[in-house]
Amino acid sequence: MAVNLAVPDPKTLRQVAGVTLGVAGAGIKKAGRKDLLVISLEDGARVAGVFTQNRMCAAPVIVTREHLGRSANGHVRALVVNTGNANAGTGEAGLAHAHQTCAALAALMNCKPEQILPFSTGVIMEPLPVDRLIAGLPACLSDLRSDNWFDAAQAIMTTDTLPKAASREVKLGGTTVTITGIAKGAGMIHPNMATMLGYIATDACVSQAMLQKMIAHAAQRTFNAITVDGDTSTNDSLILIASGRAAMAEIAEEGSVAYSTLCDAVTAVAGELAQAIVRDGEGATKFITLQIEGGRTDEECRQVGFAIGHSPLVKTAFFASDPNLGRILAAIGNAGIGDLDVARLDLFLDDVLVASGGGRNPAYAEADGQRVMKQSEITVRVVLNRGDAAVTMWTCDLSHDYVSINADYRS
Amino acid sequence: MAVNLAVPDPKTLRQVAGVTLGVAGAGIKKAGRKDLLVISLEDGARVAGVFTQNRMCAAPVIVTREHLGRSANGHVRALVVNTGNANAGTGEAGLAHAHQTCAALAALMNCKPEQILPFSTGVIMEPLPVDRLIAGLPACLSDLRSDNWFDAAQAIMTTDTLPKAASREVKLGGTTVTITGIAKGAGMIHPNMATMLGYIATDACVSQAMLQKMIAHAAQRTFNAITVDGDTSTNDSLILIASGRAAMAEIAEEGSVAYSTLCDAVTAVAGELAQAIVRDGEGATKFITLQIEGGRTDEECRQVGFAIGHSPLVKTAFFASDPNLGRILAAIGNAGIGDLDVARLDLFLDDVLVASGGGRNPAYAEADGQRVMKQSEITVRVVLNRGDAAVTMWTCDLSHDYVSINADYRS
Repeated sequence: MAVNLAVPDPKTLRQVAGVTLGVAGAGIKKAGRKDLLVISLEDGARVAGVFTQNRMCAAPVIVTREHLGRSANGHVRALVVNTGNANAGTGEAGLAHAHQTCAALAALMNCKPEQILPFSTGVIMEPLPVDRLIAGLPACLSDLRSDNWFDAAQAIMTTDTLPKAASREVKLGGTTVTITGIAKGAGMIHPNMATMLGYIATDACVSQAMLQKMIAHAAQRTFNAITVDGDTSTNDSLILIASGRAAMAEIAEEGSVAYSTLCDAVTAVAGELAQAIVRDGEGATKFITLQIEGGRTDEECRQVGFAIGHSPLVKTAFFASDPNLGRILAAIGNAGIGDLDVARLDLFLDDVLVASGGGRNPAYAEADGQRVMKQSEITVRVVLNRGDAAVTMWTCDLSHDYVSINADYRS
Repeated sequence: MAVNLAVPDPKTLRQVAGVTLGVAGAGIKKAGRKDLLVISLEDGARVAGVFTQNRMCAAPVIVTREHLGRSANGHVRALVVNTGNANAGTGEAGLAHAHQTCAALAALMNCKPEQILPFSTGVIMEPLPVDRLIAGLPACLSDLRSDNWFDAAQAIMTTDTLPKAASREVKLGGTTVTITGIAKGAGMIHPNMATMLGYIATDACVSQAMLQKMIAHAAQRTFNAITVDGDTSTNDSLILIASGRAAMAEIAEEGSVAYSTLCDAVTAVAGELAQAIVRDGEGATKFITLQIEGGRTDEECRQVGFAIGHSPLVKTAFFASDPNLGRILAAIGNAGIGDLDVARLDLFLDDVLVASGGGRNPAYAEADGQRVMKQSEITVRVVLNRGDAAVTMWTCDLSHDYVSINADYRS
């Protein structure tokens, strides 16, 4: 089902010194699958994150943010992630369950509850089966291995059809550092700060301030630039861990070559994971790159991109391989840019100039549009011709299977 | 397919003195169907309208707005409406075609082009076959009759499965006046000032200023309170005509009993038409009323209503009759109200209290939610508990047929 997305080869997922992962089947929602993950960090690892902007923020997100405030700078000992239940829309009981989870893992790891960061994904507004979750923690701890990234990626899946993982090496001065990440997500994807769940770790040495800057930079250009269905999840979290085990000077300044080299590599890993989420978007049959150029600001380019990426009419036309491109023009007109002059914009489908001067390009032939629309990967390029800002975003089509998957999700 | 919507009985559509309608088959898109409508007005009729806020506004909307500015107050002679082609995203050629249409009808009716208001609906970014349209005008004129509202409602349909019309009588002092209206629309429905196309006429005497106030009032509570798919059309127009033929004093003040009586009746007709559009929403199997109460402002209530009505996850859950109500909570959290305290809101499904205190109502039983979800008409009531504002809105579910209809629309 996923568009040009393969199962990652476990051998390509580089280990990150100072980071081990363990999974277990806790029977959170269904028996017989791995649904619980613990990521254990050695002393001194720094952690930064960005989180959902949904006001109906899940209990574990609230607790993780609180604990990060106290322990991020070298004191986080573990992250615990369950799938099968989002622990969102669960009120005071949900908060209590997230705290119980932290306390139980802290007792097993001989640390304080605030050194644990909890995460959940799955169905909303159902009580978290916290007893089963806690009962599964010892099995996770005895499974802790540094070569366990692939199993971890599998353990956090919900409606994902494939696990999502990416890995890079990059040279900082004379030292090679590693960046490895996993993510999950397929629906309720319109991240606003981060997507459903993503965890990226590096062995580089990075100050807390630079780590937070780096994850915000990467999120804005990757997870915040994708949409499947325009629904922002209650549980979105993107986490960046720096174990600091590499032999190098700490990155403590934004202007340094090391900062920009590592930031680019983190953004590349985040981008690969974010694009994997779109490629595995619920029911997706097409992977669409939205290149919005010539805007006055990045923000207005993003508005145009999301207006296209959220339009059910545009998305069904992609599904049908129908070059009904007026729908894209109509979506651009709906982007909420009050002074947008539609007569000045150019619309391209891959290399085909479809529209300009407020109407169809006279030289446009339907056969050319049809040829591009039949591809599984398509670039929609909009040149607003009113400034120098440009953004790239990613989305997918809206198919029968999206409806089937979401009509059947709980059954 | 439509949810509890019947073909209107032509006999119930009251004639409006001073207004005649004529239809013809002009072969705009397909041969063999009535696709052209002329609404002819006697001298002195006043016309007011509200229009799409889409920046990719269609050529006929631009021309109608311009002509209304000059001729609204007693000088509009006719409205001409074609289906099968939206004349949107058609640039300068589209504007020329709209002007040609006006000039041709003006010549036949012996008036000036600016006394004609043109409207189009159908596919976007295709050249309007203006020659065929103009060739069909004489047949429309020879068909002009005051009892032709039903045929007119049929002539403006696109993906609508049923024609939409509504009619009322109301007493203003000693005089009975009539309000009759027609509308079309089924997809690309997230009106922002008005829906696809709606025409309401009354024989009451109303000043130009009061007529404009009345249509704005009615649009805000009816056509601007519905959504099918969150896409605002390029051609949305809602028109209110007052022929002034009733024996009564002109309504010239907002405070008068006659104003509020007529305004309520116009709003009722507009409401019936707007709800008919949702009932006939592309692929709709459920009709959902969204009652948002206890907000600080009408606007924030509308934000919550649209966040629910636009969420594909909520809409597919309705399609599946699945009380996956956490999706509604998540949508409310996404409404963009920065200081919304989700722990304070109450969520009802018909009379069933589903959620309160930020989580599931302890007394909620899934069987109760399931019972309501199986109905074809469902009220979602959200009590925000932060103010006195309240709005009512309408939407439908997202089904396989929505995807089929929009994947096949041009074929």
